[in-house]
Amino acid sequence: GERKREVTRFEDDSRETAARMDSTDPLAPFADEFARPGEDLVYLDGNSLGMLPARTAAVMGRVIEKEWGERLIRGWNEKWLGLSRRLGAKIAKIIGAGEDEVIIADSTSVSLFKLAAAALRRMPGRKKVISDTLNFPSDIYILQSAIGLVSSGHRLELAPPPAGKLNDAAWIAGSIDGDTALVSLSHVAFKSSFMYDLQAVSAAAREAGATTLWDLSHSAGVVPADIGRSGADMAVGCTYKFLNGGPGSPAFIYVRKDLQEDLDQPLKGWFGCERPFDFDLDFHPARGISAFQTGTPPVIAMSALEPALDIVLEAGVDRIREKSVRLTAYMIYLFDEWLGPCGFTLGTPREPGCRGSHVSIRHPEAFRICRALTTPRREGEVTVIPDFREPDNIRLGAAPLYNSFVDIWTAMARIRDITGARIYEEYDGERNGVT
Amino acid sequence: GERKREVTRFEDDSRETAARMDSTDPLAPFADEFARPGEDLVYLDGNSLGMLPARTAAVMGRVIEKEWGERLIRGWNEKWLGLSRRLGAKIAKIIGAGEDEVIIADSTSVSLFKLAAAALRRMPGRKKVISDTLNFPSDIYILQSAIGLVSSGHRLELAPPPAGKLNDAAWIAGSIDGDTALVSLSHVAFKSSFMYDLQAVSAAAREAGATTLWDLSHSAGVVPADIGRSGADMAVGCTYKFLNGGPGSPAFIYVRKDLQEDLDQPLKGWFGCERPFDFDLDFHPARGISAFQTGTPPVIAMSALEPALDIVLEAGVDRIREKSVRLTAYMIYLFDEWLGPCGFTLGTPREPGCRGSHVSIRHPEAFRICRALTTPRREGEVTVIPDFREPDNIRLGAAPLYNSFVDIWTAMARIRDITGARIYEEYDGERNGVT
Repeated sequence: GERKREVTRFEDDSRETAARMDSTDPLAPFADEFARPGEDLVYLDGNSLGMLPARTAAVMGRVIEKEWGERLIRGWNEKWLGLSRRLGAKIAKIIGAGEDEVIIADSTSVSLFKLAAAALRRMPGRKKVISDTLNFPSDIYILQSAIGLVSSGHRLELAPPPAGKLNDAAWIAGSIDGDTALVSLSHVAFKSSFMYDLQAVSAAAREAGATTLWDLSHSAGVVPADIGRSGADMAVGCTYKFLNGGPGSPAFIYVRKDLQEDLDQPLKGWFGCERPFDFDLDFHPARGISAFQTGTPPVIAMSALEPALDIVLEAGVDRIREKSVRLTAYMIYLFDEWLGPCGFTLGTPREPGCRGSHVSIRHPEAFRICRALTTPRREGEVTVIPDFREPDNIRLGAAPLYNSFVDIWTAMARIRDITGARIYEEYDGERNGVT
Repeated sequence: GERKREVTRFEDDSRETAARMDSTDPLAPFADEFARPGEDLVYLDGNSLGMLPARTAAVMGRVIEKEWGERLIRGWNEKWLGLSRRLGAKIAKIIGAGEDEVIIADSTSVSLFKLAAAALRRMPGRKKVISDTLNFPSDIYILQSAIGLVSSGHRLELAPPPAGKLNDAAWIAGSIDGDTALVSLSHVAFKSSFMYDLQAVSAAAREAGATTLWDLSHSAGVVPADIGRSGADMAVGCTYKFLNGGPGSPAFIYVRKDLQEDLDQPLKGWFGCERPFDFDLDFHPARGISAFQTGTPPVIAMSALEPALDIVLEAGVDRIREKSVRLTAYMIYLFDEWLGPCGFTLGTPREPGCRGSHVSIRHPEAFRICRALTTPRREGEVTVIPDFREPDNIRLGAAPLYNSFVDIWTAMARIRDITGARIYEEYDGERNGVT
C-alpha cells in the first residue's frame, strides 16, 4: 500500500525540468482557484495557514450582506442550523468517513479535550494515556487537561519518537497494554512530517482494547486518512492548514458511528441538545454526532470554510496526495543535490509513506536563513515564505492545490544561495512572534 | 441608583408622539451605522442576533483579501496575535472592566465551563453551586458539566425565580452559605428580561466567601454592568446580541485582575502559554488574562466583531442604557394601553432597574402571533421580527442603536391588530427551528 519506499526519480536539477513537470501536472489549473498576493511570492508555509481561495471573498460578502444583513435571525432556520453538519459531511468525504460521523465544533484543542475526556470516562479502569514527543504541544497540554479533570489516577506516557521507518506500528504496539485507555497521536507530526500508519496503529490499539484519538491537522486535505476503514475511533483536525479555511477557522470532530452513543461528551451545551429551542432546564442529548457540539456554532468562520472544502473535493484527495508525494520527493531530491553539501540535515523521513506534505530541513542558522527568505533585500530576489520551527527547522510545506514544481525549485535555489553565500549573516537573530 | 421605580411618562399612544420622541433622540443617527435590509422591516429580535453594522462588510473584505489573502501567515505577527486582547480591551470598556481583565476566547458555553471548573477547583471544600431557574439552559448544562468533571461531590442548586422586585439581593443572599463555592447567574434573564442587582448579589456572595460568575450575554452593550467596581469575580458573555458581532461570534471572558493568578484554567492549550511558539512539551501558563485562552483564536470571526464594538463605544453605554430604558418603558406603556386588555400578560418587571433591554409579553397564542408578525400576508403590512420563546413568550428586544420609538409603536400596533382581529388564526402552529 501507501508505505512503500521512494520510487520517484528526477531528471536533473534544472528549472526547465521543474517547468516541464508543471506542464503535465493535472492539478496545475487549481492554482487559479487561489487569490494571488500582489507580490512575487513563493508560499511554502507548511502548513500553518493555507492560501485564500479566490471564491471565498465573494461567498463571505454574500453571507455577511445577504444572510446576516438581510435575513437576520431568519438565517438560522434558513441556512445556519444545518451548517455544522453540512460542512462536517464535506470533511467526512475528504477524510474517508461517513457523512454522519463528522461535525464542525470548537477549536482543535477544545475538540480534542472533549473526545479525550469522554474516552477516559468510558474506561475508568484503565489508567494510561499514550502519546509521543512528536505530538503538537497543545495536544499534550490538552491530554494533561483531560487527565487533570477526569482525575482518577490517570497518567500520560510520552513515547520517544518512532524511528521513521516502515515498522513503526510495532513500536506503538509495544507501548499499548491492558492498562491503556487512550492512544492519542498526530497522524502527521507538525515538525518532522513523520506520518504514522494510522491503520496499523489503530488496529494495535483496538487489539489491546484501547481507544484511539487522532489529530489530523497536518493531514486532512492532503493525505487520504481513510479514517472510516482504518479502525480508528475518534479524530479531530484543524481546517486552516491544507483545508484553507482561513486564520483560526474552526476544527472538526470525527467519532466512529458505533461509538457515538457510548461516549458521554463532557462539555454539554445547548447545541448538543436534541431540541435546543425548547430551552429545557434538563439536558437531553442530541443523537449521533450532533451531541459533540457545545455552544453556538461559529457561522461566519464556518462560512469561509465551505468554498475551500469544495475545492479540495473537486481536486480529489487521491490526486492531491499523488502530487504531494512528488512535490516532497522533489524537495528531498534538491536537498540532496544542493543543501546536504552545505550543512543542512534532513528532518523528514525519506520514505514517502512515512511523511506528510511538508519537509523539514535543519540548519544551525535556520532562523536567520528564514529571515533572509521572507525579507529579500536584493533586486530581483523572490520572497519565499516557509515556517521556522524551534530550534533549527525550516519547514517547507507543499500544498498541491497551489504549489508548483517551479515554486519548489525557486525556494530551494534561494535557500542554497542564501546559505552558500552566507547572505543570512546580514539578518539579525532575534526571535519573536510566529516565525 | 439604577434600581429606582419607573418615572417615564408618555403623552399618548399616537404615532406622532413616537415620531416626536425620535426627533429628539440623540442616538437616532446611529441607525445609519447599520445595514438596512431590503424590505420594510421592524427588527425587534430581542436579542438573538444584532443587525449588521454597515462598516462590517468592508472590514471583512479587507481582512479576507488583504490580511489573509496577501499577508498570509505574516498576518499573525502583524495583526492577529494581539486581536483577542485588543478586542478584549474594547469589551472591557463596554462592561466597565480594566483592559487587562477581558479576552475573547471560545463560545459562551465553553468559556463558562472554563471559569466554573476553575472556580470549583479553587475551593474544593465547598460543595454548593447556586444558579436559578431563570438562567439560560445552556449555562445550567455547563455548570452541571463542570460539576461532573471536577466530580468531588458538588451539587447544583437551582433557586426559584426571584420576585422581580427591588429587594432581590436579599433573596440570593439567603441562598448563599459557607458551603457555597460558586454563584452563577445571568445578569439579565433571557426570557423575562429580569435583571439582577449585580453589585448587591456579588457583595452578598463575597461576604459568604463564594465566587461569582455572571453571564452578561443579554446585558453587554446595553446595560452598564460596571463589572470592575461591582465586586464580581468572573463573567462571560456572547457578542452576537447587543454587541452585533454576527452569527456565532466568539464570547468574552472577564476575570477580576487579582483573581487571575489564583485560578487554574482547566483547558490548557497553546494560546494559553507564555510562549506558544517555543513549542515546549511542558506547559508554562501565560500571565494574566491570556491564560484563559485555549486554542487558536478565531481571527475571521473576531474581525467581524471589531467594527461593531467601535459603534457601541462611540455611542456610549450610558446613553444606550438611557434610551433602552425609555424604549422598554414605552413598550410597557403601549402594552398597558393596547395588549393587556386583549389577553396578554407582561412577563417582564415594570421597574426599569429590574429589567434589561427586552420585554416579554405572554399570550396563549404567542407562537401563531409571532408567525403572523414575521410573515404578513396583507398588502401594506410591515414585517415585524420578534423572538418566540417557549411556551408563550413573545420577546421584543429594544436595540437602542438602531430601534426607534416608531419601530416600537409599529410593532405594538401590529400585535394589537393581529390579536384583536384574530389574524393569527390564519397561521399554523407547527413549531420547529429557532422561532
